[in-house]
Amino acid sequence: MPPDPRFHPAPRPLPLARLAEVAGAALPEGADGARIVAGAAPLHMAGEGEVSFLDSRRFLDALKATKAAAVLLRPEHAAAAPPGTVALTVADPHLAFARAASALHPPPAPRPGIHPTAVIAPDAVIGEGCEIGPYAVIGAGAEIGAGSVVEAHAVIGPGCVFGEGCRIMAHASVSHTLAGRGVRLHPGARVGQEGFGFAPAPDGSFVSVPQLGRVILGDFVEVGANACVDRGSGRDTVLGAGTRLDNLVQVGHNVETGRGCVIVAQVGLAGSARLGDFVTLAGQAGVAGHVTVGSGARVGAQSGVMADVPPKTDVVGSPAWPARLTLKAFARLKAIAEAPAAPARQG
Amino acid sequence: MPPDPRFHPAPRPLPLARLAEVAGAALPEGADGARIVAGAAPLHMAGEGEVSFLDSRRFLDALKATKAAAVLLRPEHAAAAPPGTVALTVADPHLAFARAASALHPPPAPRPGIHPTAVIAPDAVIGEGCEIGPYAVIGAGAEIGAGSVVEAHAVIGPGCVFGEGCRIMAHASVSHTLAGRGVRLHPGARVGQEGFGFAPAPDGSFVSVPQLGRVILGDFVEVGANACVDRGSGRDTVLGAGTRLDNLVQVGHNVETGRGCVIVAQVGLAGSARLGDFVTLAGQAGVAGHVTVGSGARVGAQSGVMADVPPKTDVVGSPAWPARLTLKAFARLKAIAEAPAAPARQG
Amino acid sequence: MPPDPRFHPAPRPLPLARLAEVAGAALPEGADGARIVAGAAPLHMAGEGEVSFLDSRRFLDALKATKAAAVLLRPEHAAAAPPGTVALTVADPHLAFARAASALHPPPAPRPGIHPTAVIAPDAVIGEGCEIGPYAVIGAGAEIGAGSVVEAHAVIGPGCVFGEGCRIMAHASVSHTLAGRGVRLHPGARVGQEGFGFAPAPDGSFVSVPQLGRVILGDFVEVGANACVDRGSGRDTVLGAGTRLDNLVQVGHNVETGRGCVIVAQVGLAGSARLGDFVTLAGQAGVAGHVTVGSGARVGAQSGVMADVPPKTDVVGSPAWPARLTLKAFARLKAIAEAPAAPARQG
Repeated sequence: MPPDPRFHPAPRPLPLARLAEVAGAALPEGADGARIVAGAAPLHMAGEGEVSFLDSRRFLDALKATKAAAVLLRPEHAAAAPPGTVALTVADPHLAFARAASALHPPPAPRPGIHPTAVIAPDAVIGEGCEIGPYAVIGAGAEIGAGSVVEAHAVIGPGCVFGEGCRIMAHASVSHTLAGRGVRLHPGARVGQEGFGFAPAPDGSFVSVPQLGRVILGDFVEVGANACVDRGSGRDTVLGAGTRLDNLVQVGHNVETGRGCVIVAQVGLAGSARLGDFVTLAGQAGVAGHVTVGSGARVGAQSGVMADVPPKTDVVGSPAWPARLTLKAFARLKAIAEAPAAPARQG
Repeated sequence: MPPDPRFHPAPRPLPLARLAEVAGAALPEGADGARIVAGAAPLHMAGEGEVSFLDSRRFLDALKATKAAAVLLRPEHAAAAPPGTVALTVADPHLAFARAASALHPPPAPRPGIHPTAVIAPDAVIGEGCEIGPYAVIGAGAEIGAGSVVEAHAVIGPGCVFGEGCRIMAHASVSHTLAGRGVRLHPGARVGQEGFGFAPAPDGSFVSVPQLGRVILGDFVEVGANACVDRGSGRDTVLGAGTRLDNLVQVGHNVETGRGCVIVAQVGLAGSARLGDFVTLAGQAGVAGHVTVGSGARVGAQSGVMADVPPKTDVVGSPAWPARLTLKAFARLKAIAEAPAAPARQG
Repeated sequence: MPPDPRFHPAPRPLPLARLAEVAGAALPEGADGARIVAGAAPLHMAGEGEVSFLDSRRFLDALKATKAAAVLLRPEHAAAAPPGTVALTVADPHLAFARAASALHPPPAPRPGIHPTAVIAPDAVIGEGCEIGPYAVIGAGAEIGAGSVVEAHAVIGPGCVFGEGCRIMAHASVSHTLAGRGVRLHPGARVGQEGFGFAPAPDGSFVSVPQLGRVILGDFVEVGANACVDRGSGRDTVLGAGTRLDNLVQVGHNVETGRGCVIVAQVGLAGSARLGDFVTLAGQAGVAGHVTVGSGARVGAQSGVMADVPPKTDVVGSPAWPARLTLKAFARLKAIAEAPAAPARQG
């Protein structure tokens, strides 16, 4: 079933051999490499001209019933593909599918041009081939790299710099920010606003501390819908290349992340928290201020990281402990709750 | 005390008999059904011409002191109403009040017309009697049902369809969405943007998976302020008729809910989570990806649902357990903490 | 290192004696009070003409290595300042720094004027010296106090009143709101929209309860980026003077806070919750509906307050208990998890 044409452009058909190449998959002997594939879809939705993938035993039944022209899967599952479906074997079917689907359904290209209602400062620099939507506002001295898209109602403050091929989506607002290429800010993302910095005075009022830093976004950083990234207070807030923030994430001032961090929806990083490279924070987790999470560490959903986490460590719980310890603690707590009387009274 | 007229239109006065009928309440013998009621307010605020309600013993003192012309309440509380106040007895006073208050204070009707600054694609279809506010942007081929309101700065993407009587409030953005009638998107709601779907590649980069689905909103769905509903990755994200999302809720791609779910502020539903009908999720709860919560289940505030929840089950805690078990576990944990020494050392 | 001039105006240089006075610090004997200070920065970033501060032993090494012209610190740390650096002793170095930095880096003044694209109702009252940005929308009868800034795309509904010196930032939306002076709404803040109020009907539908109250914001209240403050349902939602909400905070209808509350990112206050004065809620905490948190109480990160909290009490955990009890409980739970076998089985 092709995607709804009201919302998604028609796929770009490719011969199976080319698609296998894009996906890094081996075309099995005897397969018709010239067969045209015209879409990518989940197993249960894929039509006869589409490619799909299997990356878990859980979906073997769906594989057996699929109508897909070809399925990307690991060698051990190849035999389960139905007769009409070509099994394209790969080590990482999800990655292979991402590549194949991106080739078949490339993201829409910018439609170069500046909407007449956009308000662009005279000295702002708009690169070649950019698309600037209705009611976009771009401030003095800002630079937008070639081939970028600034969607309707986005507001880009004075002096901000974006590299090539960025997309600043509807209603996003940006200030005090230097961004690399391929950066994507989803609708309603807030980047560069003041951090939450102030000192209480004896009379009960608060004195704001000027927030004099910036936000630095590495290449290909993504900031989710309605997510917030405050600028630094003195040094900068930095998101390393490739880091992805899901929707409604909060990043406080002076936070620094390494490369390729994955920060799931509604996570909060308090001021001056630091993440190494390739850290994963699952949904609704929080990291306290000035805490460091080492490279490759993974933090479970709703966990509260109150102390440094060593690299390549999994932590879970609030407060976050090593995952095995938390699982054991909760298993034992459950046993205590299910026991006839409280152990404290048994002692 | 009537509502502040700077913000709320004057109420539409109704005779008491008509109001009782609207509320499904019995007018007591001897009451003056022709008395005019001109507003609805809480017990302690209601003036002499207003109706109020009591739905908890907690507020019996406020009932005794009220100046309200009439109070909706259960029969067992009728005797506590003060002499000047008519006791209108009903089974569900809150529901009856909602109906009475809605009759007295009807929502503002659309003021038909298209603001000259709205940017509307030539082939978009705007139904009869719609109100389109300043700087609204409506994309190619979009359809807005009759009697709908699109407030200032709302952005509706190409191809989106809304049924009759919808309200898309200030700064909401919508794409890839088909919505029924009576749908309400509160300010800053984000609906239809890309989900958080990608595969990590060996070089540390991420390859985005094209998000080829849509968002389907049933009749009378509400999406709260700054809440986010991502479109499906292949199949659709679906919110069943009447489902209400409070502010800052996150709904990941491919989530499906049944009818009449109540999803309180800051809840997160991870990708492909499923809710049955009439599920309640209290504030800040989370549901993990691919997990199913059965019809009529209730999930406590801040709970973390990591595994399927059977229908009509109450769960609490992170991880979420049956509510009684969690309450017992925490009661016993408290006893352990209050005991003179740790039980592990006593063993 | 001065702040990036693309984003921050040049500092306003001050002689050291004047700066000490502003900061409430004692200038040591022999110090050159005429020396010009031209910026404020953290210890490791401060250049030779800048002032910095030390408020924790943790940063004594940074103090010893600093190039700052002067450092605000407590008397006991004065001896650790390097030879070229003047030690300015104060009781509260962070507060003193906030004052000094604000004097050196004053917030940008409004640039009076109304952008030609702003849509302002004919009867709205715009005070003297206001700056109204592109595409701002200001409704009928609204009043904006003198010296206020309404940034690009902000939408202010009919009848709203703001005092002097307010700043309503990009994409904020406001309705049904009366605000004092010096109020700041950060980008994407949503203030005054409908609360989450409805009654379930027997047929499975919900009947909305008209939300007839307002939002009252005391002087100098701040609402963070993409935070939400719903208006009252009958009475008002009230944020006391000086209260500060960080990003992505949710405030339900009828919530009332006292003066000077500090509400950190992603906190949720359910309907009719009440906070006294100077309450602190750390990140991602939640307060249940109709619960009261007493003046001076502090609630830990991710805590869930389900019952009233007495004044000046620290609570932690979900459910929130007195902080010492929760810490003990989790320490004992950890001991139980680390023990060779579960105590429930040992009993």
